[in-house]
Amino acid sequence: MQTFTLFLSSNIIWIAGGAALLAIAFAVLKYFLIMKENAGDEKMQAISKQVQEGAATFLNSEYRWLAVFVVVVAAAIGFSKVDGLGIKTAIAFASGATASALAGYFGMHTATRAAVRTTQAARKGLADALAISFSSGAVMGMSVVGLALLGLSIFFFLYTDGGAAINPTTIGQIIGFSFGASSIALFSRVGGGIFTKAADIGADLVGKVEAGIPEDDPRNPATIADNVGDNVGDVAGMGADLFESYVGSIVAAMTLAVFTFGGDVNMKSAVVLPLAVAGFGIFASIIGTFFVKAKNEKGLHAALNRGLIIASVLAIGATWWLTNKVFTLPASIEGMNLFYTIVAGIVAGVAIGKITEYYTSTDTRPVKNIAKQSETGAATNIIHGLATGMESVAAPVLIICLGIFVANHFAGVYGVALAAVGMLSTLGISLGIDAYGPVADNAGGLAEMAKLPKEVRERTDALDAVGNTTAAIGKGFAIGSAALTALALFAAFSQGASLDGTPLILDINTPKVIIGLLIGGILPFVFSSLTMRAVGNAAFEMVKEVRRQFREIPGIMEGTTPPDAARCVKISTDGALKQMILPGLIAIAAPILIGLWSVQVLGGMLAGALVVGVMLAIFMANAGGAWDNAKKYIENGNFGGKGSDAHKAAVVGDTVGDPFKDTSGPALNILIKLMTVVSLVFLPWFLS
Amino acid sequence: MQTFTLFLSSNIIWIAGGAALLAIAFAVLKYFLIMKENAGDEKMQAISKQVQEGAATFLNSEYRWLAVFVVVVAAAIGFSKVDGLGIKTAIAFASGATASALAGYFGMHTATRAAVRTTQAARKGLADALAISFSSGAVMGMSVVGLALLGLSIFFFLYTDGGAAINPTTIGQIIGFSFGASSIALFSRVGGGIFTKAADIGADLVGKVEAGIPEDDPRNPATIADNVGDNVGDVAGMGADLFESYVGSIVAAMTLAVFTFGGDVNMKSAVVLPLAVAGFGIFASIIGTFFVKAKNEKGLHAALNRGLIIASVLAIGATWWLTNKVFTLPASIEGMNLFYTIVAGIVAGVAIGKITEYYTSTDTRPVKNIAKQSETGAATNIIHGLATGMESVAAPVLIICLGIFVANHFAGVYGVALAAVGMLSTLGISLGIDAYGPVADNAGGLAEMAKLPKEVRERTDALDAVGNTTAAIGKGFAIGSAALTALALFAAFSQGASLDGTPLILDINTPKVIIGLLIGGILPFVFSSLTMRAVGNAAFEMVKEVRRQFREIPGIMEGTTPPDAARCVKISTDGALKQMILPGLIAIAAPILIGLWSVQVLGGMLAGALVVGVMLAIFMANAGGAWDNAKKYIENGNFGGKGSDAHKAAVVGDTVGDPFKDTSGPALNILIKLMTVVSLVFLPWFLS
Repeated sequence: MQTFTLFLSSNIIWIAGGAALLAIAFAVLKYFLIMKENAGDEKMQAISKQVQEGAATFLNSEYRWLAVFVVVVAAAIGFSKVDGLGIKTAIAFASGATASALAGYFGMHTATRAAVRTTQAARKGLADALAISFSSGAVMGMSVVGLALLGLSIFFFLYTDGGAAINPTTIGQIIGFSFGASSIALFSRVGGGIFTKAADIGADLVGKVEAGIPEDDPRNPATIADNVGDNVGDVAGMGADLFESYVGSIVAAMTLAVFTFGGDVNMKSAVVLPLAVAGFGIFASIIGTFFVKAKNEKGLHAALNRGLIIASVLAIGATWWLTNKVFTLPASIEGMNLFYTIVAGIVAGVAIGKITEYYTSTDTRPVKNIAKQSETGAATNIIHGLATGMESVAAPVLIICLGIFVANHFAGVYGVALAAVGMLSTLGISLGIDAYGPVADNAGGLAEMAKLPKEVRERTDALDAVGNTTAAIGKGFAIGSAALTALALFAAFSQGASLDGTPLILDINTPKVIIGLLIGGILPFVFSSLTMRAVGNAAFEMVKEVRRQFREIPGIMEGTTPPDAARCVKISTDGALKQMILPGLIAIAAPILIGLWSVQVLGGMLAGALVVGVMLAIFMANAGGAWDNAKKYIENGNFGGKGSDAHKAAVVGDTVGDPFKDTSGPALNILIKLMTVVSLVFLPWFLS
Repeated sequence: MQTFTLFLSSNIIWIAGGAALLAIAFAVLKYFLIMKENAGDEKMQAISKQVQEGAATFLNSEYRWLAVFVVVVAAAIGFSKVDGLGIKTAIAFASGATASALAGYFGMHTATRAAVRTTQAARKGLADALAISFSSGAVMGMSVVGLALLGLSIFFFLYTDGGAAINPTTIGQIIGFSFGASSIALFSRVGGGIFTKAADIGADLVGKVEAGIPEDDPRNPATIADNVGDNVGDVAGMGADLFESYVGSIVAAMTLAVFTFGGDVNMKSAVVLPLAVAGFGIFASIIGTFFVKAKNEKGLHAALNRGLIIASVLAIGATWWLTNKVFTLPASIEGMNLFYTIVAGIVAGVAIGKITEYYTSTDTRPVKNIAKQSETGAATNIIHGLATGMESVAAPVLIICLGIFVANHFAGVYGVALAAVGMLSTLGISLGIDAYGPVADNAGGLAEMAKLPKEVRERTDALDAVGNTTAAIGKGFAIGSAALTALALFAAFSQGASLDGTPLILDINTPKVIIGLLIGGILPFVFSSLTMRAVGNAAFEMVKEVRRQFREIPGIMEGTTPPDAARCVKISTDGALKQMILPGLIAIAAPILIGLWSVQVLGGMLAGALVVGVMLAIFMANAGGAWDNAKKYIENGNFGGKGSDAHKAAVVGDTVGDPFKDTSGPALNILIKLMTVVSLVFLPWFLS
């Protein structure tokens, strides 16, 4: 046994890399299994093809723009004469960006193909439909963790000379990988978020409200764009977001291990431990996927929970083994303490998810209350939705505080990073559970558009409803991990900013730090304002176009002439690409400009953006989710049901909530991580 | 000349006290002049009496509750055995509370009597109507500065033995006065804000929207409550808010002077300088009031501006004289530097006011844009209103940053406090300009209810319209001064928290401080959630009552039977009193609980609450103001005018904006000041 653990600990890089390759192989295998399924009749395939092409067109346009951005930034880093930047960091940056883009593309590619097969399977029954849609989610999940961990393992091996040269410089080069991932994440989240909500609002306002045709009606020209949006926003965007958190938490832990245990002979163990936890998390996630099976509607939720719980238990067990038996840790730290820290991270993630569920699910007190307030009109619906979102900030942030406290108590700042790694260790399956929702949603849309029998739509709706609940948990993980990752990166920044051996002191009483805090606090507000307006503007264009088509295309309302769906896709695409640039540049330029002025102001700014960003992100995500389900609660027949005045008021809330929960809110997760990574990467420049 | 300045500097306490007495005498004189005016016919007097009695009833109930609170807290402080607390602090606390309450009561008492006389004067012309309503505002302004400065002068004289015993302990006892003022401010703002918006929303939703009767219609039972609300919210509440800032900035400057110049023989000059600046500000304000005269509508805005500008110029001149000629300052500081600092404060206040005007006035780009977005419905109106509010956070906070930078550059943390003192030095007139608006508003309501000729209402509307613009500037001062005052108090807290001579270091990198920042960030969200919900709940009760009266009182819609207005006042009163308690207790309990755990966490918490609170306060105030005027812009005949779909959408935004701008937003100003004062007062307990 001891020889085995010794073998493990000395070859952990190969094992992490192997786990990553296994995840990729698993994703590819799942993809081919999905593709072998029946893709339905010609009509279904034709509609599906429109969605596939729309999504591919958008991602291609987006990635083409991003390629220019990546090349320019990589060149700037590569040719920089500043110590600590240079060609190695540039290569890692470009690779991180490419890996994240690849994962997003593959996940989206699979999702658009899995949807139509899920619809076809739903003609037979629920079990097959679940299998296909969940497989598609798993492709996304495994692609993310596989490509992320593979990239990190390779760069760790190459840049540290197989672990022989672990120091702030080599680890700093690896952080470039995280920066690349963050850049893609920002533009994917913002661009995807604008695309999907512009299409959604545009389709709803003209189709449902003005023309009075149902959701997903094939006569509505924006329906295809709406379905494309689910894929580019909720699949590719969410994937890029968590890719970034996953990579960010691991590099933050590695960096802090170097600073914390710099003089210890066993420092290397602490540095590679996050890679090991992530690798074993992949094994656990793959095993978990085999338990996601349900025969009927009742068993759906349980099936998904079962998979996640089994994976989590296995990951916790593996963590105990790794920290207590496999690695010989630095003298100042104990295995059990690291174990507690990682478990704290996993528990915090689940707890935040459960709170999110409480504030946003259909059958809970806050959501029912918003539904009730819709009876007195849209204004009271909005007031109570906003109040609910604000209230919902408290519990998750307190849990994050508790997580910081526990992690720090047991293992210092290194512990905070490790808690984030723990929270994300089962990302392979948890992202899968999250990313299956949009596939089920799209499958339902296809059933509607292809006019399949009612029971098909009912089955996909059952899948979708469970998907909404699991999505809440996924959002909890996304926000919780973003906060902890950003904090860990921030700690790495402060440690790295030491000039004479003592880490940077950011005393709030100094005017520079308080000015930084205030400037940092502005950014999430300005950023949210820009993204909300972007959705509003793009939706406005979409509304005009749909109205034009209804007016100018003869036979469109009778269903004899098909609408021009491609044009709506193009409007969303153009709107998203044009309007993602300014917020993106602000996120990258702000820390650089402030950093060149003063590292202390920058430190304050990062902290201010972190605090305000986390609050606003939770507020917006939960208010949006609550409005969405308050509307659904009324549609289920309460307070007058569909078509009542209360329902009309709830639709207003739902529409306001759209950019809140799917564009501005999630984009803040990335803003706070990206600004910290940018600061960390360019720190040598600021200090020089 | 030199003998004169020497006389001045050695007797400054008497001069400050004299200025304060002069302000009070001026207010009383103005009151009697107002009361001598014609109060109109019997019908007008009868309506006015209802408003007077309603306001008095509410304030009496509120103050009765507050008296219990003040006695309990004063006893706790007075009987405390902790060094630094005790009977002297308790007396100052009770006096501060009493002085603030008195100023609020007198201002409200005058406003409710001035309104009917303004209406009567408006029958003749604009000039007289302006004279009366502005006089009423001046009564509020002068009462606030007079009672505040009188109290501070008396306690300074008594507790420092006429200036002979200036040290952290004696100044700490004076801070009790500030704590008392803050407590009243919180409950007045929150209670008054809930009262006024519950009545406003209730009256609008049933009266205007459901029954289709105009605003201020005498048949609407909630109209009287709505008018009462203007007085208790916008007059008494606003007065208490600025009373607190005024006192807080002065005691913060005094405290920081003691810490900063502790060893210097001329420390006393730096300690009494804020009192001197405030005293000469009163002289300047009184002179300024004589220039507020207008013959016609065109000259209105100019008249108010002229008064403020003359007062500001005089105050700046006096400041130059005081800092450069009168006082012999500590060696480490130069008179001109202090002069620059104070001017920076005055300029920052005006600049923030102008930005507020840009974001919220009827004819500006952001407001027109929201009006335009109302064409596509309530949802886009709300989305763009929220986006505008978020965007509007940037410029004012950057100005605050600039103010901090300049003040700190010239005079350290003492300078930051002095900038706040400068900003508020002309409060006597600037609050007057602000508090005349609600009087004009009420006068218009009376004209409507008493069915006076159309031109009367037109004249009061002209007054009211200008009042809305000046109110924007007033809000800018309120937020800007709250931020600077809270910061100055925070600096005093950190200086006071030194245990071994070195001030408290609040390094963001320590987990305690980051946890504090996060907890502090939660509080403004939870606080806003509570106050928004409180308005929603009280408005819900009001809606039910108004509907009941319309249904059950025969002849009410025909105008033959009067509605039961007193019951609506009671509903608002009960709702406000019941629902102000929880937010109030949180504001006081949170810093005490956290302070007993750790002073470092508390420091972080205060900073977190400050940063998030300032942002949220600006966001909410400006979004609310913009929605309000977007509606008015449509009512002026744009985008379809009154009754159009765009107008209906804009009414939704306006209603959401009501608690934003008049309850939750302004209450945050007080939250951040109060929590810092509580921390400062109880610091000896935390350290013991």
